Amino acid sequence: MGTAIIAGRGALPGHLARALAARGAEFFVASLPGADVAAEAEAAGWPHSPFVVERLAPLMRLLEERGMGEVVFAGAATRAALDPALIDPATATLLPALMPALAQGDDATLRAVIALFEEAGFGVVGAAEIAPDLVPGPGALGRAVPSDADLADIARAAQIVAALGAADLGQGAVVAQGLCLATEALPGTDAMLRFVAQEAGGLRPDPAGARGVVFKAPKPGQDRRVDLPAIGPATVAGARQAGLAGIAFEAGGVMVLERAATVAAADAAGLFLWAQGPCGSS
Amino acid sequence: MGTAIIAGRGALPGHLARALAARGAEFFVASLPGADVAAEAEAAGWPHSPFVVERLAPLMRLLEERGMGEVVFAGAATRAALDPALIDPATATLLPALMPALAQGDDATLRAVIALFEEAGFGVVGAAEIAPDLVPGPGALGRAVPSDADLADIARAAQIVAALGAADLGQGAVVAQGLCLATEALPGTDAMLRFVAQEAGGLRPDPAGARGVVFKAPKPGQDRRVDLPAIGPATVAGARQAGLAGIAFEAGGVMVLERAATVAAADAAGLFLWAQGPCGSS
Repeated sequence: MGTAIIAGRGALPGHLARALAARGAEFFVASLPGADVAAEAEAAGWPHSPFVVERLAPLMRLLEERGMGEVVFAGAATRAALDPALIDPATATLLPALMPALAQGDDATLRAVIALFEEAGFGVVGAAEIAPDLVPGPGALGRAVPSDADLADIARAAQIVAALGAADLGQGAVVAQGLCLATEALPGTDAMLRFVAQEAGGLRPDPAGARGVVFKAPKPGQDRRVDLPAIGPATVAGARQAGLAGIAFEAGGVMVLERAATVAAADAAGLFLWAQGPCGSS
Repeated sequence: MGTAIIAGRGALPGHLARALAARGAEFFVASLPGADVAAEAEAAGWPHSPFVVERLAPLMRLLEERGMGEVVFAGAATRAALDPALIDPATATLLPALMPALAQGDDATLRAVIALFEEAGFGVVGAAEIAPDLVPGPGALGRAVPSDADLADIARAAQIVAALGAADLGQGAVVAQGLCLATEALPGTDAMLRFVAQEAGGLRPDPAGARGVVFKAPKPGQDRRVDLPAIGPATVAGARQAGLAGIAFEAGGVMVLERAATVAAADAAGLFLWAQGPCGSS
């Protein structure tokens, strides 16, 4: 029984495909518009097909025919208006379940899509089940570790991200010396870090004090089979340009993409990469 | 009995001073570092003095000597590290009450400062009591009014700002087509609008759909005698550059500074200025 990768933008779908290919597993790449993995799938000769949400039912039939018993959602998807001209009759019968969710937000949309796949008989697995090395447990990944002042900033940022998640908002925040310099919204983590670099440089009360941290965590109650928040080399570059002391995230709840490159970049920049365990300890 | 304006940055302290001067009331301007009103006070010959938080007790003595029975907090203050060399013995006795609050956030700090003034026998009044025209009631201030889609974005943004406020975060958000493009943090509303202009232009799902709104409201449970959120001509310029349909805010909870200029700028740009009443109606 194979695994279908429902692929959006970014490096994760390719990482999962390579992990499955390396262990000789059967898999299929279904690429949403803009999925970076499509070119790699074409070049590598992996079984693959583009698809649009308007053709969800034909995609499910194709995956069944190819023997794909489970699906994994990977990468970023842009919620776009549906094009009525593209919708086939079978997908049209699925839309009454999908349309209210589309209006409610990204989480609701993903939950509805997962429910449709499950009702069609597919198993839904998380990226961490396919590539467990993606999701680090507690502790420092590189050489640097947070100071006590950094740990206090991490604790405040974790509290803020929990509050944001409860409102179905972003999954990140930047805190320095106890002050919230930025919160994440639709434009994402890299945009938030550019914002801090441009707008918040002079706002730290003590110029010689803690530089601040960016913190990432999944939303409370989030279905962790669905795309966890992710960091990677771009996050390190953004944190460096924002003048931060490091990057922290919830242990077991955030993916580190291109881990070797990410750790190397953090070590080179002197930033910590810290997976925060429960109760504020490592 | 006179009114002391505890003045931070921005246009509000000057507005209050002019309102008090116009009605012949006694007042005194106490300017924090960076207060824009200091130069105007000097030029106009208003009674005034600079002060720093490290000299809070001498300021209170001075205000008593000048017959100031009440204080109004106006303008933005940057929470900075205290300079021990500046602290006088009387202020040192106040610091045990202030230091824990400084670590807890802006709201806690203001509450602690208010409590100190009240304990010293001063009344604390809100800017809206001194200049009621500052805080509009429900309805449109200019010519444009929000569409139904804009009203839906306003409702979602109001929900988000309430969630942010509960976590002692910013008092603003930008929502377009139901999606949160940005939330406000320490850098403020203008910085948030620059962020939307730079990072969120292409993220609206329907390019021909609702352009989105910026919404401002006080924090839930905020002491409304203390500096309410404010909008002004710069907010209109920022909203225009961010490609938004208009500016909305909680009726009775947000100050409109330089109202005539703000309304004229919104009318010229075709943006609505909408004070949202209770229950989602005007």
